[in-house]
Amino acid sequence: MRSSQFFLPTLKETPAEAQIASHRLMLRAGMIRQTSAGIYAWLPLGWKVLRKISQIVREEQDAAGAQELLMPTIQSAELWRQSGRYDDYGKEMLRITDRHDRELLYGPTNEEMITDIFKTFVRSYKDLPKNLYHIQWKFRDEIRPRFGVMRGREFLMKDNYSFDLDAEGAKLSYRKMFLAYLRTFARMGLKAIPMRADTGPIGGDLSHEFIILAETGESGVFCHKDWLNLDVLQNPPEAGSDLKDFFAKYTSIYAATDEKHDPATCEVPEDQLVSARGIEVGHIFYFGTKYSKPMGAVVAGPDGEPVAVEMGSYGIGVSRLMGAIIESSHDENGIIWPDAVAPFHVGLINLKADDAACASLCDDLYAKLNAAGVETLYDDRNERPGAKFADMDLIGLPWQLTVGPRGLKAGVVELKRRATGEKRELSVEAALAELIKA
Amino acid sequence: MRSSQFFLPTLKETPAEAQIASHRLMLRAGMIRQTSAGIYAWLPLGWKVLRKISQIVREEQDAAGAQELLMPTIQSAELWRQSGRYDDYGKEMLRITDRHDRELLYGPTNEEMITDIFKTFVRSYKDLPKNLYHIQWKFRDEIRPRFGVMRGREFLMKDNYSFDLDAEGAKLSYRKMFLAYLRTFARMGLKAIPMRADTGPIGGDLSHEFIILAETGESGVFCHKDWLNLDVLQNPPEAGSDLKDFFAKYTSIYAATDEKHDPATCEVPEDQLVSARGIEVGHIFYFGTKYSKPMGAVVAGPDGEPVAVEMGSYGIGVSRLMGAIIESSHDENGIIWPDAVAPFHVGLINLKADDAACASLCDDLYAKLNAAGVETLYDDRNERPGAKFADMDLIGLPWQLTVGPRGLKAGVVELKRRATGEKRELSVEAALAELIKA
Repeated sequence: MRSSQFFLPTLKETPAEAQIASHRLMLRAGMIRQTSAGIYAWLPLGWKVLRKISQIVREEQDAAGAQELLMPTIQSAELWRQSGRYDDYGKEMLRITDRHDRELLYGPTNEEMITDIFKTFVRSYKDLPKNLYHIQWKFRDEIRPRFGVMRGREFLMKDNYSFDLDAEGAKLSYRKMFLAYLRTFARMGLKAIPMRADTGPIGGDLSHEFIILAETGESGVFCHKDWLNLDVLQNPPEAGSDLKDFFAKYTSIYAATDEKHDPATCEVPEDQLVSARGIEVGHIFYFGTKYSKPMGAVVAGPDGEPVAVEMGSYGIGVSRLMGAIIESSHDENGIIWPDAVAPFHVGLINLKADDAACASLCDDLYAKLNAAGVETLYDDRNERPGAKFADMDLIGLPWQLTVGPRGLKAGVVELKRRATGEKRELSVEAALAELIKA
Repeated sequence: MRSSQFFLPTLKETPAEAQIASHRLMLRAGMIRQTSAGIYAWLPLGWKVLRKISQIVREEQDAAGAQELLMPTIQSAELWRQSGRYDDYGKEMLRITDRHDRELLYGPTNEEMITDIFKTFVRSYKDLPKNLYHIQWKFRDEIRPRFGVMRGREFLMKDNYSFDLDAEGAKLSYRKMFLAYLRTFARMGLKAIPMRADTGPIGGDLSHEFIILAETGESGVFCHKDWLNLDVLQNPPEAGSDLKDFFAKYTSIYAATDEKHDPATCEVPEDQLVSARGIEVGHIFYFGTKYSKPMGAVVAGPDGEPVAVEMGSYGIGVSRLMGAIIESSHDENGIIWPDAVAPFHVGLINLKADDAACASLCDDLYAKLNAAGVETLYDDRNERPGAKFADMDLIGLPWQLTVGPRGLKAGVVELKRRATGEKRELSVEAALAELIKA
């Protein structure tokens, strides 16, 4: 993409309404635009990142055996009356009346709808287990939306739902998601700590939140300091394992949210206990028959007797993840994207766009990078070098490749790694080889 | 994907509520499930196809120079008051009040919002032209939703918006979309005829609908019979062309919707005029300054004077397209997917799942097809052959590869092309080679 054509409205000033780094930087980098309180349009740069984050989530769900579908945003109130949650949910639920005076709502989550779909089609234990997910916009009418996409009203969530014949199967489904979540966040360059958590309005008695430690986090959390240096995927379980050892290992090191942490009973010595703030990016629940019983999600068991299925649900805040990644990875000049979710891999900067030799080399590099499948943003604008460098640091692409008249004479270009700031002068060929391999 | 694990709830009976083939077949093939009137969940098979259709739309938009973003589903009423459409839109607009008594709505289209985003960031003619699109769920509160996804309430639409300095530029943008639309539909195996059309509530005076001829279509249409045998992309324009000749050629052959067709002035001889029914899959508009003037979308022109930008908008009914494709491509046994949008490329049928030799060969074929990137649905269930063949015909994958004990002894498998019904007995190697190449 050429910057001269790209719709990338970066801002020089810091917007006054933004209180935390990720919100400030997403606005300044031209990634989002608020259209109503807590509701955002995703501009091209932001949308590119959101799609990459979604794709990683999707791949790890697929790898764990979950199947993707898509449920609609608008649901009927009737479904929620069946589970008993319609009145419980309060003002956070956006309630709607259609032209025929039917009561609808904008889904804040999908336990009821998926249970209804499941029970319509699945009748036998032979069709279990099933694990179904979607990545869909949700709405929660927060009383005070804030922190940009971290606590928006319309937000993108991956939610899935597992159905098993018995508790043993349901707990295996839970452990599979536990592992899938650790893998998902690790691929995005995030360390997410699974913490024992309250189940809230979803229900059930086994639940973990996945928390990114960050000063700007909204949740108070506690964990053993061993978590700080732990590589959660250093010893991945073997394929086909029942994941019991894996799960036991990672749940044996203390980590709990505010609500679950009790100083009176916590056995971690004070000097080894970390009290911190964190951002919740995922939450998993095992809640047994809480929905299957009232809604009649029953299958015929091996002996022909009806069995209410054992369920769990699993959520990842896909749009919130973007904020969490930026909170974890930025400096005073802007965002530092982990390679896996960067909107482009390389920023190609022509320091003198009106110089024929510079333009010719840049055009050639741009064509070669594209041909090799390396996503490149090519700053071909007629701007001062300072403005170009500042924009490129702000939007945080992993690599910057700079071509200027002086280097050109010496036969070199400059390659900068955004994360470290390290700069090297290289021949054109060496720079290309490095970017295509990286 | 193995059928034994796949969530594919096919139905033997034809659902009573479905009046047209596409609705019947999508229900029977386990692609969709109605969750409220005119609102559907997309089950895994349907969702796979919807993603493929979306991806073709996306690729052709990108190739035409449009840039993708994503606007939210919920909009503020205030924006629509600025354009004057809030009261005009009537009961089709789903109106919502949030917890703070602010008036919101579920967007039926996005002219207002994109104009607001544009005017916030674009100030100079130097940043023109721009063409921005998104693929997002919309809601229209149809008084009588019907025909499944053809006239649903919550539906997926690609809409984009072009911004130019003058009418000349805006008309070029219009022609580019005209071509992009022809290419998009042709890639899905559809012949879409561009017809002169009414502009309705969007406004403007230049507009084309893209219509698929089908008996079950909701619109009455008229066209010259030359359209019936015309390959719309036989002579694509050269890259970089201003598309004037191309546009003139395809608009010179008569085609008009009911509203635009006037028997009194139509110059097509009666014996050459086709009167038919059609399905609208796309609609493009050039409406000049209808939104930019009231909403203040103004840039500084080359002489420094303010200019209200010239706009167009362009829509494709992405979810409706699935219905249109099925209406155009099915037989009495089920759907016949065009290769480009098929949910899987190959259906691999094991006729005797409990036979060790059959299972072993099928497992091997499945592994090899997957390794070659050929998307395969592997029917490994313990079902009668008849049920397997019927399901495979119903869901309409382009190729069926059948392994049975009798063929196995003779060293052959059976390869069937769904579209033609042609069956051939081939060696395992020959069948694999054909599927991997195709």
